[in-house]
Amino acid sequence: MKIELVENVLKANDELAALNRKQFSDAGVFCIDLLGGPGCGKTALIEATLQRIGYAGVIVGDLATQRDAERMARFTDQVVQINTGKGCHLEAHHVMRAMSRIDLSRIDFLFIENVGNLICPVGFDLGQHVKVGMFSTTGGDDKAAKHPYIVHESNLLLLNKIDLLRHVPFNLAVFRGDVRRLNPTVEMLELSALTGDGIEQWVAWIDQQREHWIGRKAVL
Amino acid sequence: MKIELVENVLKANDELAALNRKQFSDAGVFCIDLLGGPGCGKTALIEATLQRIGYAGVIVGDLATQRDAERMARFTDQVVQINTGKGCHLEAHHVMRAMSRIDLSRIDFLFIENVGNLICPVGFDLGQHVKVGMFSTTGGDDKAAKHPYIVHESNLLLLNKIDLLRHVPFNLAVFRGDVRRLNPTVEMLELSALTGDGIEQWVAWIDQQREHWIGRKAVL
Repeated sequence: MKIELVENVLKANDELAALNRKQFSDAGVFCIDLLGGPGCGKTALIEATLQRIGYAGVIVGDLATQRDAERMARFTDQVVQINTGKGCHLEAHHVMRAMSRIDLSRIDFLFIENVGNLICPVGFDLGQHVKVGMFSTTGGDDKAAKHPYIVHESNLLLLNKIDLLRHVPFNLAVFRGDVRRLNPTVEMLELSALTGDGIEQWVAWIDQQREHWIGRKAVL
Repeated sequence: MKIELVENVLKANDELAALNRKQFSDAGVFCIDLLGGPGCGKTALIEATLQRIGYAGVIVGDLATQRDAERMARFTDQVVQINTGKGCHLEAHHVMRAMSRIDLSRIDFLFIENVGNLICPVGFDLGQHVKVGMFSTTGGDDKAAKHPYIVHESNLLLLNKIDLLRHVPFNLAVFRGDVRRLNPTVEMLELSALTGDGIEQWVAWIDQQREHWIGRKAVL
């Protein structure tokens, strides 16, 4: 009974997600779902990215406050904040509703900043083209091993706050080894949203993925 | 239908939690549920605490791996690791089952390290005497405002990694102000599990709370 209910919820979510994805693809909008724990630097990364690419929109999920939307509104007017209350992840219907407030004809990229949570958002398709999982050096080198689900499901894994590496106990070889063991083919990038280290590689990855999924390059 | 199901799950959880709490109290074991996002330093804090207090046990929740239990087993033989798979929080039945592997007559304190998640664990009573919510300076000064539920529900809020304050963009006044606005009476402690700053105040708080809930001081 309980399992059936959960399956129905996921099935309904998948159907809406497929509609979202079709709408994004038809409009030539490449959509990224960015997932990571609270404080890993998702908002800072999107801010740094918006300063390097034009024509981008953001849908940002949080339990409460408009703070992230306010931060990103400095760089684009296509921003929608979703407050989930006690909800621990975004679902496809959130994104569908938020899309009605975004002019898809004016953007090439859409970033969905999921609720800060390494666990629950992973299982919900939102209609994105790619999922990007984010860790940080300050979160400890054991977090990939402890969160295998996000490592399996991500198209790209980011390790942020690489600038703080010398101040924290974090063994890069351990982290990389855990990722490789869990997902031998996933791409990895190390960067600092704060200092800008690695951001060019990240932007290049986005652009290349957009070409793959949408069929043409954006004007970067 | 869905709401009723959720209410039943929570009601069943509360009943088990009450049984757990009675068993802890009867055995003179003071129980702390430690909640915080992934990488905020929960394991490191418990490690630092175990080196200062004797007769303590730990129940630790993670999606995968035995790494935290192995870290804590260096300081006490009363450690149980729970792997939740894709489960985003501990529930009272997890704790009840783990208790059968802990000798309550040999401990004064029991730490439950919840799954690294600032959202989902908050709503589930495990049978603890107090809930302690944990943030970190590396997670950003906006995290209390974005997670009002844990600020409301905690008996004590910890701000960890205070040693990294000069390396990260974190405004202490903003963080403290958000906490006070959301919960004017909650106690707050700033500390570093790594350097030991503030750990004595934390241990004193635990000891004082044990006296309040259990009715007598432990031999620290």
